[in-house]
Amino acid sequence: MKGNLLYEGKAKQVFRVEGNDTHLILSYKNDATAFNGKKKASFIGKGKYNNQISAKVFEFLQEKGIASHFVRSLNETEQLVEKTTIIPVEVVVRNTAAGSITRRLGIQEKSEFSPPLVELFYKNDVLGDPLINDEHALLLSDVTPAELLDIKEMALNVNDHLKQFFENIDLTLADFKLEFGRNIEGRIILSDEVSPDTCRLWDKETGEKMDKDVFREDLGDLLYVYDNILQRLEATV
Amino acid sequence: MKGNLLYEGKAKQVFRVEGNDTHLILSYKNDATAFNGKKKASFIGKGKYNNQISAKVFEFLQEKGIASHFVRSLNETEQLVEKTTIIPVEVVVRNTAAGSITRRLGIQEKSEFSPPLVELFYKNDVLGDPLINDEHALLLSDVTPAELLDIKEMALNVNDHLKQFFENIDLTLADFKLEFGRNIEGRIILSDEVSPDTCRLWDKETGEKMDKDVFREDLGDLLYVYDNILQRLEATV
Repeated sequence: MKGNLLYEGKAKQVFRVEGNDTHLILSYKNDATAFNGKKKASFIGKGKYNNQISAKVFEFLQEKGIASHFVRSLNETEQLVEKTTIIPVEVVVRNTAAGSITRRLGIQEKSEFSPPLVELFYKNDVLGDPLINDEHALLLSDVTPAELLDIKEMALNVNDHLKQFFENIDLTLADFKLEFGRNIEGRIILSDEVSPDTCRLWDKETGEKMDKDVFREDLGDLLYVYDNILQRLEATV
Repeated sequence: MKGNLLYEGKAKQVFRVEGNDTHLILSYKNDATAFNGKKKASFIGKGKYNNQISAKVFEFLQEKGIASHFVRSLNETEQLVEKTTIIPVEVVVRNTAAGSITRRLGIQEKSEFSPPLVELFYKNDVLGDPLINDEHALLLSDVTPAELLDIKEMALNVNDHLKQFFENIDLTLADFKLEFGRNIEGRIILSDEVSPDTCRLWDKETGEKMDKDVFREDLGDLLYVYDNILQRLEATV
């Protein structure tokens, strides 16, 4: 069933599905990268956690009516997804200030954004994924102004649901990054992954970081943290 | 009439007007800076050219109905302006790609933007005047969403008029930066300066750069170029 490797990213491989032009297999790797690939490491088991956590997030979001590329988990590290052409605009939603925005705009860490802040970044490793505005996004992608509005609205909608999802397992969602893709019918749907690699999650009681910042900032055992999130999710279902 | 020095910027000094709380005196300096102040030099006579060119631009824009802080020239290097509180958002309008956007987004120099591209930057020297989006602008200033729309519309309106203004003296307006301020009645009007320090101007015939890029890129005699622009302007009036 698994066809040729189509594309290899920093955290995932993408495979064709034999005899099927509408779906792909996402294979989550054990690699962690940060600071635009400048910091790298591998954690045996990480791919398994991200695949399973991301699957649970997409299942939850689909129940809430958010269309995504996710079809189903295939095994510990792989999932079947609808084939999309990724839109080269990363959408970040921020509830609380952390990471790049604190340095970029001099905003104090943990400042609350109300309403949540939406930022767009040009998905381009060579240029370091620079911040862009709406006009740049229209210039650098094939999305229409109406589609861009939709994408931002979907991102805020995802935020509302994800805040609740993580609240249920005693985690605060500080911020997260989404990617969208255009499927074969031309419709824009949520793509990529939603995991502790792409969300900032803080323990509600201790305030501890429970996401890739553990790796970025050398705060402890990344696998312990990802395993803890998966256990919390399995305990609630 | 001229009161105390209120503020000194990279290219201008701002003085109080004795016994007058509604106006200020802008005094254009001979200093040129580039790359966020990393490159510096002084050109005897530069302040005179910028004051006189900026005055002519503001007079032209006021004839076209663009409200600005400009009242009148006082002498070779100084002008009387309405007092405003500067909004810490620089507005850049680009007709043709040049400068930072080519490096930031990998866009080829001289690519045409149609419609013109509007970019906002947070006016903050310590942070290096970073690019921001509309939501950041609302967060980092006191402008309302409606005022921000107005500001962007004014900037595009200024672009239409300035393109014509420079076309009349055989210069192509590639891009320019505007600053806006809130006057004592709370109204947002065009402020700061509009000069070859803040516009990219290319000779229509030779394509030669006729602006501060001559200094940024060490292309020749800055004063010759600024004098040439003033002469062209004086010849048309």
